[in-house]
Amino acid sequence: MQELIKYGKKIVTAGLVHSHFGNISKRVGDHMLISTTGSMLDELEGQIVSVPIDPATPDELDVIASTEVNVHRAIYKHTSALAILHGHSRYAVALSMLYEPGELIVPEDSESLYILHEIPVVSGGVGSEELAINAAKALKDHKAVIARGHGTFARGATVDEAFVILSSVEHACMVKYLIDARENKSNRD
Amino acid sequence: MQELIKYGKKIVTAGLVHSHFGNISKRVGDHMLISTTGSMLDELEGQIVSVPIDPATPDELDVIASTEVNVHRAIYKHTSALAILHGHSRYAVALSMLYEPGELIVPEDSESLYILHEIPVVSGGVGSEELAINAAKALKDHKAVIARGHGTFARGATVDEAFVILSSVEHACMVKYLIDARENKSNRD
Amino acid sequence: MQELIKYGKKIVTAGLVHSHFGNISKRVGDHMLISTTGSMLDELEGQIVSVPIDPATPDELDVIASTEVNVHRAIYKHTSALAILHGHSRYAVALSMLYEPGELIVPEDSESLYILHEIPVVSGGVGSEELAINAAKALKDHKAVIARGHGTFARGATVDEAFVILSSVEHACMVKYLIDARENKSNRD
Amino acid sequence: MQELIKYGKKIVTAGLVHSHFGNISKRVGDHMLISTTGSMLDELEGQIVSVPIDPATPDELDVIASTEVNVHRAIYKHTSALAILHGHSRYAVALSMLYEPGELIVPEDSESLYILHEIPVVSGGVGSEELAINAAKALKDHKAVIARGHGTFARGATVDEAFVILSSVEHACMVKYLIDARENKSNRD
Repeated sequence: MQELIKYGKKIVTAGLVHSHFGNISKRVGDHMLISTTGSMLDELEGQIVSVPIDPATPDELDVIASTEVNVHRAIYKHTSALAILHGHSRYAVALSMLYEPGELIVPEDSESLYILHEIPVVSGGVGSEELAINAAKALKDHKAVIARGHGTFARGATVDEAFVILSSVEHACMVKYLIDARENKSNRD
Repeated sequence: MQELIKYGKKIVTAGLVHSHFGNISKRVGDHMLISTTGSMLDELEGQIVSVPIDPATPDELDVIASTEVNVHRAIYKHTSALAILHGHSRYAVALSMLYEPGELIVPEDSESLYILHEIPVVSGGVGSEELAINAAKALKDHKAVIARGHGTFARGATVDEAFVILSSVEHACMVKYLIDARENKSNRD
Repeated sequence: MQELIKYGKKIVTAGLVHSHFGNISKRVGDHMLISTTGSMLDELEGQIVSVPIDPATPDELDVIASTEVNVHRAIYKHTSALAILHGHSRYAVALSMLYEPGELIVPEDSESLYILHEIPVVSGGVGSEELAINAAKALKDHKAVIARGHGTFARGATVDEAFVILSSVEHACMVKYLIDARENKSNRD
Repeated sequence: MQELIKYGKKIVTAGLVHSHFGNISKRVGDHMLISTTGSMLDELEGQIVSVPIDPATPDELDVIASTEVNVHRAIYKHTSALAILHGHSRYAVALSMLYEPGELIVPEDSESLYILHEIPVVSGGVGSEELAINAAKALKDHKAVIARGHGTFARGATVDEAFVILSSVEHACMVKYLIDARENKSNRD
């Protein structure tokens, strides 16, 4: 729990997302610790709940968990992720709107290209079944996915790794945006 | 009062506005707590005064209250707002100059679209009667308004909600600016 | 001295300038307190010296004072300034290169226009006599000046006022840059 | 060691690089203190190791040292550097992609031009022999080099000087990017 509190603060102080614009979870066996709805990532003390990954019936704590809790569930069920970070990073959101759902953003900088290979852009409303399916599917073979016009989902074997991935996606998208703007080229050249 | 001090600091450390470029208030019955003129949002200790929402005659503390005190009054009188945040966020100010007064900015990102629906741009000088009327009128049906070339007024049922709205407006404006710049389109396409 | 230390930190944490990229002074009678050469604005403890405004011969402490000490002297001698902040803010530096020396940047946002009216761009090398003369002359009638391709000099009756002015110049230049980039117009349209 | 910890934090809080996106070292005789692989620049406590500059056989600590350790070695062997900072600063990375390896970025702002004169762009994969050779060669006559699409290597006689250089490169690249974008000119006009 201290780990989620710590990384929540780091995400905000790094300028990756505004306080309210994201959520974070960590898998612990068949449950996950997840930030509550309406909580601030930089003030998660007392704002983390434990819910089952695969409840038979809707869990009673679901009403206070993040509205994206079912997207986190789908990712844990269908991938090897042990931690998930979601944040509405600016360049990731802006760049994703210049792509169609299903397309891939290929980083220009060498680290992001090495770490991420490519970043799928997927469709689906906030907390929706469509987003849960698309994000989980894309994260089987990728470390991050951008919900188009919404934000990044980054997965890791640890919270630290998910933080690296979230940072890398925003870095990749900002660098690519800046390069493409100067080259006056469309995204799919 | 501690709440205003806390959120004043958060606004500045989030990079949403420079220390002196905004003001903040909270309704308490028929009065409001409001930051003083010339105060820094990140150092509001001892810089908050209580003035009536609807004084029969100009209140004696009006001279040390924010120069925008009458805009806050108009908003409290004509809307259900219980907290107001005003800040000169960069992308909100820049984008507003590309719109005419009375026009609406429609966010491109899904959260801002969901939370804000649309953001009216209004005219009126700093602390003026014109701004007070226009801002209050626009905030009846919207959670935020941008005074053209000046800054955002965000309202909430709590200071926390007003902070979410202020963040969301700047997020929406930055994302929209970045997208439109790449699509080389005018704002009203 | 505590005031200079405090505002030095605020300038850096606000992201207005990098640690080493600026200097700060305050007039005290016929002397000024000024940051030392090579010091970091966010760590000025023990890095402030007192030198005369108008020494008959070069002061022995001049060798450790900021390399801009003579620019500060000229401003104190020829204007009513009681505090001076100098910083290499990014948008101010970039925008100044799109203007010729002697031209004026007119802010687009209402606060900057109200506070600054206009911002002269002047020529002159770092710490040079030419810069000292040009900056002092421009600051007689203006609150801030941008040394072309170098950085902002902001004056105030207090350190706090100089901080407002420094913030306002960067705000004005960023907003103007963003607007002009979208309108595809040259600076002097 | 305290010095590396301190400047690691400063680099991240200044927004120059994300926590994981860089490394730092300091020469001490025939050894260097260097951050470990996977460490965060803003949390280097316990994350610094000492390895020889010129080991006869691969050092046992090489496996936990930064993956760029051989680039640092080459720079220490072939230049007078006593400290090295490497970071994936955004504008430096983006601008470098608009240049070919071997080309020089000439700063537009006066300080960067004075401090850096010019910034070579070189090729070579992360931690590769090619990068080690190219970076060391370029740093004989320059204070900084940008590995194309990867990041800046800054050298200094002290960690503080290397920090000035790293800041200056990002400042120079951001200012140049902003100016060139407005002038619609290619980088080599």
